Amino acid sequence: MLGREVQLVRYPTGEVRTSDFRVLSVPVRPPDRGEVLVANRWTSVDPGMRLRMSPSAPPGYFAPFALEAPLDGVMTVGEVLESQADGFAPGDTVWHALGWRDYAVVQAHVPALGGLGTLTRLDTELAPGQQYLGPLGGMGLTAYAGLFRAAELRDGDTVWVSAAAGAVGSLAAQFAKLRGHRVIGSAGSEVKVGYLLDELGLDAAFSHRAGPVAELLATAAPDGIDVYFDNVGGDHLEAALGALRRWGRVALCGAVAGYERPGAPGVSNLFQATARDITLRGFRGSSYLHLLGEMQHQVAQWLRASKLRYREFVVDGLERAPEAFQMLLRGETLGKTLVRIEPA
Amino acid sequence: MLGREVQLVRYPTGEVRTSDFRVLSVPVRPPDRGEVLVANRWTSVDPGMRLRMSPSAPPGYFAPFALEAPLDGVMTVGEVLESQADGFAPGDTVWHALGWRDYAVVQAHVPALGGLGTLTRLDTELAPGQQYLGPLGGMGLTAYAGLFRAAELRDGDTVWVSAAAGAVGSLAAQFAKLRGHRVIGSAGSEVKVGYLLDELGLDAAFSHRAGPVAELLATAAPDGIDVYFDNVGGDHLEAALGALRRWGRVALCGAVAGYERPGAPGVSNLFQATARDITLRGFRGSSYLHLLGEMQHQVAQWLRASKLRYREFVVDGLERAPEAFQMLLRGETLGKTLVRIEPA
Repeated sequence: MLGREVQLVRYPTGEVRTSDFRVLSVPVRPPDRGEVLVANRWTSVDPGMRLRMSPSAPPGYFAPFALEAPLDGVMTVGEVLESQADGFAPGDTVWHALGWRDYAVVQAHVPALGGLGTLTRLDTELAPGQQYLGPLGGMGLTAYAGLFRAAELRDGDTVWVSAAAGAVGSLAAQFAKLRGHRVIGSAGSEVKVGYLLDELGLDAAFSHRAGPVAELLATAAPDGIDVYFDNVGGDHLEAALGALRRWGRVALCGAVAGYERPGAPGVSNLFQATARDITLRGFRGSSYLHLLGEMQHQVAQWLRASKLRYREFVVDGLERAPEAFQMLLRGETLGKTLVRIEPA
Repeated sequence: MLGREVQLVRYPTGEVRTSDFRVLSVPVRPPDRGEVLVANRWTSVDPGMRLRMSPSAPPGYFAPFALEAPLDGVMTVGEVLESQADGFAPGDTVWHALGWRDYAVVQAHVPALGGLGTLTRLDTELAPGQQYLGPLGGMGLTAYAGLFRAAELRDGDTVWVSAAAGAVGSLAAQFAKLRGHRVIGSAGSEVKVGYLLDELGLDAAFSHRAGPVAELLATAAPDGIDVYFDNVGGDHLEAALGALRRWGRVALCGAVAGYERPGAPGVSNLFQATARDITLRGFRGSSYLHLLGEMQHQVAQWLRASKLRYREFVVDGLERAPEAFQMLLRGETLGKTLVRIEPA
């Protein structure tokens, strides 16, 4: 049997191009003992992947992708075709971390990617499989852990979420709204701002392209903010440090602004944190795996009650994964960006 | 009666010069009801004052000093000459926040400077008066709160303290040693490094002038660090972010590196905090006033048992306060920099 896989052929400098990737047809071997053969159906496109497309990526979670090899560590949902492992049977819907390929031979019962990428059977009665790549998966966990643990959200906090039309941001912003907070969202276009106000029901929103972020934030939150959920870094984080009230908190979720510009100037006003007892807490959703069940329970409840809006931006065809990734980094997608893989 | 006061006459651009100040002779009025007349004996010189010598100083604690007016908010110890307030009598040793002058007429029972500057009678049996400007005062509280609250010091943590020969740094480094931690200190000269190793007994030390800080830190702490007590910012903070292990913590105490260079490049590797679940917590000692008694009790005990080294760098004469401040910012002082005021 043959299957396709998408490989990185060079580390992009600056913006990612589709020519940095190639699609190969490779033989698919049957599963050995303890393994499962999965036909991938949905795979993920995340801004954080950009960090791994560099030879100088920091160690740990963000280790560089190998060149001319399949991109491992990408969350994917598929269907079990053949199982040589206890607890998995043909027809099961599962998630694992061997994405950007048609078929994956996955070892069962081996933790990978800090646990989130471990082969896991999914409850498709609770939600359709691809939602486990969004609100019920890493995205949901990142938003949930970031807001309630990293930022230690407290009653009465005013919250700013950047990239609030994105996969994680739109969840974080809604979680905060559902808990009764005043929420300001920012995004990269007026269309997205409309989405934030009209569909997500945020209290205020702005496009960061409309002027200096600090000024736009001051207009949206004239009395300041208590929590900043940071998906952008750079000028956004500086603006937040200028607007945060005493004992304010920042959840450092990601800094997409710097991913493609390694020489970008850093945050220059950290002394504001000292002046006003502000805490900045970096975090990875996968560090809060113990919250996964609690989060899935809460989010599935909100989804069933139609209290949570969730958009998917679906790109069809495995071979278009690099294009989907490029669109994501350019800010051209809205909601969770997914690649749908047709059976080969 | 006449007394002298030191005033700021212009906001320095770049390095502070003594010509940015002037010394005036002014009449001293007797205290009104509720006031106390204090003959100042010791006044303080702190790096944080530099932040207030700018018209664009951020609001709150770091509000700009007024020009051609006495520098208020500077911690000072003196002797009560005349009292019109309950609870204070001639001969009492007190602290207050009206420094850089010979005599101060101080309102009793009015919180100022977040509480630390409130007129307070000092127990000179516990320690000599000037020590309340050092280990038993704001410096001690800053080191104590920074280490045990902001950085949440935990058993087994390896700790790096920058500016470890300075007033706050030398206390933070010793507090950590006294609690059994491995402590690395850095400072700005080899003389200071000798002090850190030989007198404070730190486990490793380096001069940041000996090479790139990240490399020096990697040599001193080849297995990384868990806590960074930051008195410098800039390249020091970047080096710490590169060396901190998972769940590491940074106490953001100050960033003297940037005080005289407002255009200095900021910290560019904050994504390390996201990658390794690192928390950076800005803090002011004065935000932890509820710990003052606990800290004074603990530190006085350590001082009595000769377990804590404490150096004073004394500059004699009120008129030399600007010079003392300049020396402090240039890194030419060792230990707590104090100005001794002779009775006029």
